[in-house]
Amino acid sequence: MAIHPVIMCGGSGTRLWPVSDRACPKQFHRLVSDKSVFQETVLRFRAEGFAAPVIISNAAHRSLIEAQLAEIGAEASALLLEPEGRNTAAVAAMAALHLADAGEGALGLLVPSDHFIGRPEVFLAAVRAAADAATGGHITTFGIAPTRPDTGFGYIQAGESISGAVSTVAAFREKPDAATAASYLASGAYSWNAGIFLFRPDALLAEFEAHAPDILSATRTALTGARRDGAAIYPDATAFAAIRATSLDYAVMEKTARAAVYAPLDCAWSDIGTWSMIGEISARQNTPAPVEIASEGCVVHAADGILVALVGAENLVVVADGARVLVAAKDRSQDVGAVVKALKERGLTDYL
Amino acid sequence: MAIHPVIMCGGSGTRLWPVSDRACPKQFHRLVSDKSVFQETVLRFRAEGFAAPVIISNAAHRSLIEAQLAEIGAEASALLLEPEGRNTAAVAAMAALHLADAGEGALGLLVPSDHFIGRPEVFLAAVRAAADAATGGHITTFGIAPTRPDTGFGYIQAGESISGAVSTVAAFREKPDAATAASYLASGAYSWNAGIFLFRPDALLAEFEAHAPDILSATRTALTGARRDGAAIYPDATAFAAIRATSLDYAVMEKTARAAVYAPLDCAWSDIGTWSMIGEISARQNTPAPVEIASEGCVVHAADGILVALVGAENLVVVADGARVLVAAKDRSQDVGAVVKALKERGLTDYL
Repeated sequence: MAIHPVIMCGGSGTRLWPVSDRACPKQFHRLVSDKSVFQETVLRFRAEGFAAPVIISNAAHRSLIEAQLAEIGAEASALLLEPEGRNTAAVAAMAALHLADAGEGALGLLVPSDHFIGRPEVFLAAVRAAADAATGGHITTFGIAPTRPDTGFGYIQAGESISGAVSTVAAFREKPDAATAASYLASGAYSWNAGIFLFRPDALLAEFEAHAPDILSATRTALTGARRDGAAIYPDATAFAAIRATSLDYAVMEKTARAAVYAPLDCAWSDIGTWSMIGEISARQNTPAPVEIASEGCVVHAADGILVALVGAENLVVVADGARVLVAAKDRSQDVGAVVKALKERGLTDYL
Repeated sequence: MAIHPVIMCGGSGTRLWPVSDRACPKQFHRLVSDKSVFQETVLRFRAEGFAAPVIISNAAHRSLIEAQLAEIGAEASALLLEPEGRNTAAVAAMAALHLADAGEGALGLLVPSDHFIGRPEVFLAAVRAAADAATGGHITTFGIAPTRPDTGFGYIQAGESISGAVSTVAAFREKPDAATAASYLASGAYSWNAGIFLFRPDALLAEFEAHAPDILSATRTALTGARRDGAAIYPDATAFAAIRATSLDYAVMEKTARAAVYAPLDCAWSDIGTWSMIGEISARQNTPAPVEIASEGCVVHAADGILVALVGAENLVVVADGARVLVAAKDRSQDVGAVVKALKERGLTDYL
């Protein structure tokens, strides 16, 4: 049995502007360590029981991905290069179709490329522990043990136990309001939906067939017409554009009877969604180190060679890459995406 | 009669870091308009009754000054280029010695190059009105009408009226504490010492002879041994280094019986000492304009082409020139000089 990580690189990370931008989104940056978040994700699976990764990304980022893989001495078993983003249902369908011939006992593990995991061994152990349920045909998600009543995540309500930490899913819950989030945290039956899925390829294909046959059919057409170039696979663009764009949660997970959840998973997970979160977990040093006069609680992320000086600054995020400077109140860092929106509206594409 | 402006360019303006730096101090930057503060100062005297300016500066800034003069089609009658700064007594002595042969009725007007004057006509009218007193031998200063109990300026206490708005000086007062500043403001007899002096060259020389003969003698030696190159005059470096470094106020003004003050002068004056002050008077636009999301009361000064985005930012100063970024609480902008000090201590001279 081998678990095939399928690393999804489609995110844009606009809340991490200006570092995360069109040319080089969030996951390809050294946000929290001396490796990019994508590289950290690849390296996490250099472990017993895991096959070389399949990488699914926008075609525009092929050379970036190849360079970052080379930098860490890693190779992808395949590089599925989307002509455009069609959301995670298309990604999951491609992954299942691609892995359909991966051999007896093969499992796919769909994972975002842009998450931080502080305790990778705990994470890998959870994946291995969920393998039995997945082999049994369950599309198994991973529910992160919530540490606060966060309103920025979807929640998974666990149902009856299947075995060990794996249960059926009673319900997927959309991002809650504050009161609901507090009640979820108090109940203990809810965990954060991290968008990670462990599955037997044929089982996931069967669920697509049952609940989203149009997506499966269109994706199959796009892959059948794909152009191949070494490990790179370019789905047919016209067929790909016809795939209905929706999430795997909507298309399959909320409808299937085979959903399962491993929870609670307590692996020091973060989706590194905002600069404020990066401040909490980053071990990155700025060069030169910022000058801080009578300042506290600030997160500084400057490109190499840029000096940031703070005077009487409190709880701010300051990000500078030369042509672009972001200054945000730390508790407003979830609103940084509004800057990207404003730049688009003003046609300032050079700064996107 | 002609009034000869003597424009002093010796300031370093460390509180306006990073725009003001060693290579190009405060007065040579476009801080509040589309001309530099120095250029605005030169242009202010393109008026009836004023001769071409004498400019006193560090020798390192000669080409900067010549370029900025050319840009506005102005010419200096002389460029006195100091090998090093020896404070304002040396500057005033040079000015008086240089203007000693300027002809019958000539007056010198020593002015800083780095001040803003919002109502130049009011200022020029005051200078003209003070000319009689100066011609009569008074070393006449200008006292700015105080608008707040500022503790950052020296104050001048007016004595008996000489004529019109010109009085004798009862006392020069050092920077006061807050309570004293409030009492000065309430009394109405005190004005801010703007460091502007109108004088008859021979009268100022006589006061130097009486109260600081060593400074006069050393300065005369330095000028006698000067090297000339067109309008540029380089005092002898060895002799110049021997001049006692002190202010004109200490060396002469606090001792002479011929001090006078024109006050109150209400010409919308600012010494543009801090970024906070620049925010109050600047008409400069950033290109591109900053993106501001849920932000207010911020002063942004970015080099052309640098985009600053603010999210939830309140009452901050943000200055960016590419390699250097300053973020300061507006009410702490007087402490920006501490950044320069810290950079020196860390040996980060590239950022000074």
